[in-house]
Amino acid sequence: MSKKNAFYAQSGGVTSVINATACGLIETARKHKDKIGKVYAGRNGVIGALAEELIDTSKESARSIAALRHTPSGAFGSCRYKLKNPEQDRAQYERLIEVFRAHNIGYFFYNGGGDSQDTSHKVSQISKSMGYPIQCIGIPKTVDNDLPITDNCPGFGSVAKYVAVSIREAGFDVASMAKTSTKVFVMEVMGRHAGWIAAAGGLAAEKEGDAPHIILFPEVPFRKTAFMRRVKECVKKYGYCAIVVSEGAAYKDGTFLADVGSVDAFGHKQLGGVAPVVAQMIKDEAGYKYHWAVADYLQRAARHIASKTDVDQAYAVGKAAIEFALQGKTAIMPTIVRVSNNPYKWKIGQASLARVANVEKMMPASYITKDGFGITKRCRTYLAPLIKGEDYPPYKNGLPQYVELKNVPVRKKLNTDFKI
Amino acid sequence: MSKKNAFYAQSGGVTSVINATACGLIETARKHKDKIGKVYAGRNGVIGALAEELIDTSKESARSIAALRHTPSGAFGSCRYKLKNPEQDRAQYERLIEVFRAHNIGYFFYNGGGDSQDTSHKVSQISKSMGYPIQCIGIPKTVDNDLPITDNCPGFGSVAKYVAVSIREAGFDVASMAKTSTKVFVMEVMGRHAGWIAAAGGLAAEKEGDAPHIILFPEVPFRKTAFMRRVKECVKKYGYCAIVVSEGAAYKDGTFLADVGSVDAFGHKQLGGVAPVVAQMIKDEAGYKYHWAVADYLQRAARHIASKTDVDQAYAVGKAAIEFALQGKTAIMPTIVRVSNNPYKWKIGQASLARVANVEKMMPASYITKDGFGITKRCRTYLAPLIKGEDYPPYKNGLPQYVELKNVPVRKKLNTDFKI
Repeated sequence: MSKKNAFYAQSGGVTSVINATACGLIETARKHKDKIGKVYAGRNGVIGALAEELIDTSKESARSIAALRHTPSGAFGSCRYKLKNPEQDRAQYERLIEVFRAHNIGYFFYNGGGDSQDTSHKVSQISKSMGYPIQCIGIPKTVDNDLPITDNCPGFGSVAKYVAVSIREAGFDVASMAKTSTKVFVMEVMGRHAGWIAAAGGLAAEKEGDAPHIILFPEVPFRKTAFMRRVKECVKKYGYCAIVVSEGAAYKDGTFLADVGSVDAFGHKQLGGVAPVVAQMIKDEAGYKYHWAVADYLQRAARHIASKTDVDQAYAVGKAAIEFALQGKTAIMPTIVRVSNNPYKWKIGQASLARVANVEKMMPASYITKDGFGITKRCRTYLAPLIKGEDYPPYKNGLPQYVELKNVPVRKKLNTDFKI
Repeated sequence: MSKKNAFYAQSGGVTSVINATACGLIETARKHKDKIGKVYAGRNGVIGALAEELIDTSKESARSIAALRHTPSGAFGSCRYKLKNPEQDRAQYERLIEVFRAHNIGYFFYNGGGDSQDTSHKVSQISKSMGYPIQCIGIPKTVDNDLPITDNCPGFGSVAKYVAVSIREAGFDVASMAKTSTKVFVMEVMGRHAGWIAAAGGLAAEKEGDAPHIILFPEVPFRKTAFMRRVKECVKKYGYCAIVVSEGAAYKDGTFLADVGSVDAFGHKQLGGVAPVVAQMIKDEAGYKYHWAVADYLQRAARHIASKTDVDQAYAVGKAAIEFALQGKTAIMPTIVRVSNNPYKWKIGQASLARVANVEKMMPASYITKDGFGITKRCRTYLAPLIKGEDYPPYKNGLPQYVELKNVPVRKKLNTDFKI
C-alpha cells in the first residue's frame, strides 16, 4: 500500500488553542514521514475538501508550525458548515471521497465540536460503503466544553481562565469605585446552552465576598425577585456586586433575558447583549450605578492568558490523533481522561465516534449551588485544574507574536467545480 | 519642626497600575522614616480626609506593600468627588486642614487625573491663606492620557496594551471565521473625549491587512457613507473587517453614535454601548454577520497584561512624589519626560500644578490619518514604547494573586462629623 496523505481541517468557532492541536498533529506527522505522506489542511475547514482547496502544510517551516502552538484562531480558516446526512445529500460525501482519492488521502482528521464529530463519524461510515478506505479521527475542540466522554474539551480551559481572571480584576476595580460611583458590574460570557464558561467565573471567588457574587446560568431559570434580593444583599454586605451572566440566561419559559423586545428609533429589534439588560434592570429596581462588559470573541481568542493545561492538552490530542491513525484506528476521538485531582493528572484516552456524535454534555445539577447563583465545591474541584498554569506567547514591541502561515495551495487535480 | 505625617489618596477611575504608584510612594517614604512619619491613606480618596477616615499604611507588611505593584484597582478605595472652589465652599478646605492638623499631616499626595491635580493645586493655595503649611504634590494617573506637560500618563500604557493585544487576537479569530460566518468585529473602548485609547488599538496593525482596519475616534466626526465604503473595501480585500470604536465616537453635530434614541419594551432609553450600534448599522447596510465586544472595566483592570513601561513609570512617579516632598517642593506634579524614542528612554520631570490644572491634552491632528480611520507613523512612534514589556503578576491555582490590604483605620481625633 502506497504512503497515504492526511487531511486535517478546523471546524466551527475557533479557540485560542485549536492551532496548538494543529501543531501537535503536524509535528507528530512529520516524525512519521515513512508512514504518513503530506498533511493537507482544508482551507476554511471541510469546505476546503469539498472545493478541493487544500493547503500544503509541508511548505511551512518547522518554526512556523511550532509557532502555531502559541497562536490563537484557526490558521487554515474554519467554517460553520454542517454536512447533511448521507441519505439527504450523498453527493457531498461522494465529492469528499473523490477529492480524497485524487490526492491520495488516507487519513481524515476533523478538529471541532459535536457537529464535527458527527461528520467524522459519517465519513467513516460512508468510506466503507463507498469502498474507499479512510481512517477517520475526530479531534475535540470547543470552548463550550460540551463533548461527552472526554473529561473536558481543549479550548475551554483557556476561556475559563480568561473569564476567571477578568472578573477578578473587574471585581477589584468596582470594589475601589463603589463608595461614590459604580456599585454593580455585569460581565457577559459565552455559553448559549450550557453554563460551563459562566461557572468558570466562579473560580475567582475563593473566599467570602470575592467577585463574582452572582452567576446567571442558562441552566437556572431567571427569577427576578430572588436575583434582585441577592444583588441588594451583596451591595449591602460587600459594598458592591459583581455578576457573571451567560449569554444563554433565560426565563422559565425559555425567553432569553437578552430578548427584551426593544427596538431602536428605526424599529429595529434591540441590538443584543444580556449584560446591558441585566445592568439596566438593576438600575431600574435599585438605582445602583452600573458598568457592563461583553467579552465576546475576546474570551476565546485570548491566547495571551491561555491556560497551560489547556495548551498542553490541545497539543496532546493533535499528537494522539496521528498516533491512533498509525495504530490503524478509525472512527474514534482522542479524549482527555482525568486520572487524579490532587495533584491533577490526566492522560489521553479514546472514544468511539458513534458514542460521541450528537451527544451534548450538560453541567451536572450538583455543580450549581442551591440558590442557583454560584458553583459548588464539586464544580470547583472539576474546573480548577483546567485553568492551571500560564503559557505566555512571545512578545515583540509589546505585542504577542502570532504566526500567519503561507498557506500554499495544493495544485487541483480535479477539473470539476462543486457547489457548496 | 516635628516629623510630619503624609496623606495619600487615590482619585477618580482606577487603573491597573495606580497601586504601583502607591507602592512606589509608600516604599520610598519608608526609607525616609527620619523625615516622614506615617503614610496615611484616605479611605475612598479625598473623602477619607473629609470624613477623617484615614488608613494607617504602617500596619501593612513590606510584602503587602510590595504586592501593590502588581495589584490592579485602588487598594484604599477611590472616589468620584470633586472639591468645589474655595470661594464656593470654603468649609471643605477648612475641614481638610482641620483633619491634617489633627493628624500632624504635612504632606498631601493626590493621585489622579485633571480634576485631582486641580484639587491639589487648590489645597496648596489654601494652605497658605489658612496659615497651615502643607506640601502638595499631585501624582499623575489616568487611562485617558489627557494630562498636559507629562509625555504620557501612568495607567494609559497598560490600557493601550490591552486594547492592542485584544484587537490583534480578535482579528485573528474573525479572519478564520470570515468565509462562512462573522465578517465584521467591533470592539468598543474607553475615551469619551479623546481618542488615545482607540488609537492604541492601531498599534496591532503592523502591516497591510492587519486588524484593526478601522478606528473610530471621538475627534473625527462620523460619516456613515465613507465608513461603510471602507468596511466593504476591507471585507472585499481582506475577507473581514476589524473595528475599534471609541465610546465617544460622535456625529458632526456632537450626538454620540451610542445615542440612537432606542427604547426597550418598557419605554426605557436604549441600554448604551456604541459597539452594538455600529455593528447593527453594518448589518443593515451591508448584511455582514457581526460580533461585538465592550471591554469596559476589563481594559483598565487588566493587570494580567499590563505594560512593563507603564508599571515602571507608575512606580517612579510615586517614588518621585516623596523625593520632591523631601526636597521641600510643593504645588508640583512629577511628569514623565521622553528622552529618546529609539531606544526609548524616559526620566522623571516636574510640572507646576498651576500649569497642569484644568488643561486637557488632546490627540494632535497629525496622529490621525487623512481618511480619519487610522493612526499615522508619528502616532505609532509616540505610542509604541508605552506598551513595551510585560510585567506578569504572580499566579496561584491559575489565578493572579492580588493583594487585599488590612486597611487598619487610624483612630479619629476629631469628634465632629462632616457631611460630604
